[in-house]
Amino acid sequence: VSDPVAIGIDVGGTKLVAATVTADGTVLDRQRRETPARDGELLQRTLARCVVELGGGEGRLPVGVGIAGLVTPSGEVRYGPNIGVRDLPLASRLAETAGCEVSVVNDATAATFGEQRIGAGRGRDDLLMFTLGTGVGGGVVVGGEVLIGHAGFAGELGHVIVDEGGRACPCGNRGCIEAYASGTSMGLIARERLVDLSVDTTLRDEAELTGRTVTRAALAGDTFATSILAEAGWWLGVAAASLVNVLDPELILIGGGAALQTSRWVLPAAETALAEHLIGSPWRVAPAFELAALGDDAGMVGAALLAAKRATAAGGAAR
Amino acid sequence: VSDPVAIGIDVGGTKLVAATVTADGTVLDRQRRETPARDGELLQRTLARCVVELGGGEGRLPVGVGIAGLVTPSGEVRYGPNIGVRDLPLASRLAETAGCEVSVVNDATAATFGEQRIGAGRGRDDLLMFTLGTGVGGGVVVGGEVLIGHAGFAGELGHVIVDEGGRACPCGNRGCIEAYASGTSMGLIARERLVDLSVDTTLRDEAELTGRTVTRAALAGDTFATSILAEAGWWLGVAAASLVNVLDPELILIGGGAALQTSRWVLPAAETALAEHLIGSPWRVAPAFELAALGDDAGMVGAALLAAKRATAAGGAAR
Repeated sequence: VSDPVAIGIDVGGTKLVAATVTADGTVLDRQRRETPARDGELLQRTLARCVVELGGGEGRLPVGVGIAGLVTPSGEVRYGPNIGVRDLPLASRLAETAGCEVSVVNDATAATFGEQRIGAGRGRDDLLMFTLGTGVGGGVVVGGEVLIGHAGFAGELGHVIVDEGGRACPCGNRGCIEAYASGTSMGLIARERLVDLSVDTTLRDEAELTGRTVTRAALAGDTFATSILAEAGWWLGVAAASLVNVLDPELILIGGGAALQTSRWVLPAAETALAEHLIGSPWRVAPAFELAALGDDAGMVGAALLAAKRATAAGGAAR
Repeated sequence: VSDPVAIGIDVGGTKLVAATVTADGTVLDRQRRETPARDGELLQRTLARCVVELGGGEGRLPVGVGIAGLVTPSGEVRYGPNIGVRDLPLASRLAETAGCEVSVVNDATAATFGEQRIGAGRGRDDLLMFTLGTGVGGGVVVGGEVLIGHAGFAGELGHVIVDEGGRACPCGNRGCIEAYASGTSMGLIARERLVDLSVDTTLRDEAELTGRTVTRAALAGDTFATSILAEAGWWLGVAAASLVNVLDPELILIGGGAALQTSRWVLPAAETALAEHLIGSPWRVAPAFELAALGDDAGMVGAALLAAKRATAAGGAAR
């Protein structure tokens, strides 16, 4: 086994995972903790403890953190609603405490970078990734580089508007793809349609309607549930068409916790809608939709590899 | 005056312009000809003649061509509906005939590069440009590089879908921003609304309703016409919001033949819609909309500067 090149940490709304990672993405050690809520100071100390326990620290391995929220290019968490922090200069504080180089980026951006480096996007220089879960996130790779954006807020693919004035989105707007394809939205759509008493579905017996219960019903053969997943996929294809018209990637990855189990309904519908909405269809091959490969590790591994890459670039520049 | 670095040619649907261009974008000489329609062979010979008359040729200045249509990374015009060509390997044929390096790219891509290098986007590494005219085109600059895309079809900003199933677009789909903000679409929208006989507008007296006539009426104080321009701007802001959520640029340029005269109505409405639809608004500054600066020369100058850049890069690599 080769040496680790960085420590990766993925900070989610309820839990965080951390590990040392090698250049080929092998996870050598792994820690899992609760994410401290609404306490930036405690979050930073928790991450510092992870770093030390994984053998990092003063002048040692670079650290990459992926975190749900809006993160500036310098690694300040401007707004992390799931974790309950804002305006937290996490990269600089953690670098100070731990004594090593720290990169902090959006978790879906980190996951996209991980997939491009060692996952389903390996060897592809231009790709998009949608991450499907409670919400819809994503990332963009252009010319082999994952987009961070001018303010650090690139890659919010969940808020591509597909139907202005359409369904309400948790972000406060209407018609974002997240309002059609997130787990939360699929649960809401199911609930709305159950008002029609002629709809025959096992979902009537569920106490809660979420992406998870819709998926479970679909896997058990419920055609009402599968139609909701296919519709979500169709809208994803519409959002993808807008982005392919602008970015012309080679590949579109679908990742996130809900991707694998729902792909048999989501992907064909997304492909259909992309083909229908793409400009210049007769003169081009539409990029394929493919499942992401790294699963739940994508964010952690991607954050580690991005930190390693930045450390190498900085070292190269310093020499 | 410094020496020219390249020859730039902008091939439009009815006319083409060609010139030698210096590194700072100064146009030293200028030719204007009819664009040969539906004849790739004649088009290529016409361009070769321009090159020779501008002092180019065997081993001399690199040539950059911007052309309306879908152009592959190798400079093959896959589909140029306005010019009536398809599957024309223009870059390789012209390079053979003229004996110099030739780059062929989409005209709006060339214009975007020109604006980023020496126009309104100078010094900005991340920007979008919408070009407004008969249709809506555009381009994207990420990290200082203009996007060509995997197949060469990046930058079709006119076909960002803002309202799936909405207004019919000339591309065959529905709800593209071009169906709301192009000159053609604004003319159609005006015509549809004149069915309401209570609408008071000088446009009733026009033989033809186009972006041009709507703009002329707006400039003369017709409030019905100004409302159509403001609506077009509002939809542009919606399309921009989708793209800013994904790409997070610093600046959004509005260029093309219709930009300057309509900006007082289009830009404020676009800014309003962008602010309304952008995710994380409280934690970020929305990119500004600004008018492009190079006018009709943007495509020609941009194509020349792109050819010069590529020739330098190739020369650097060869050394």
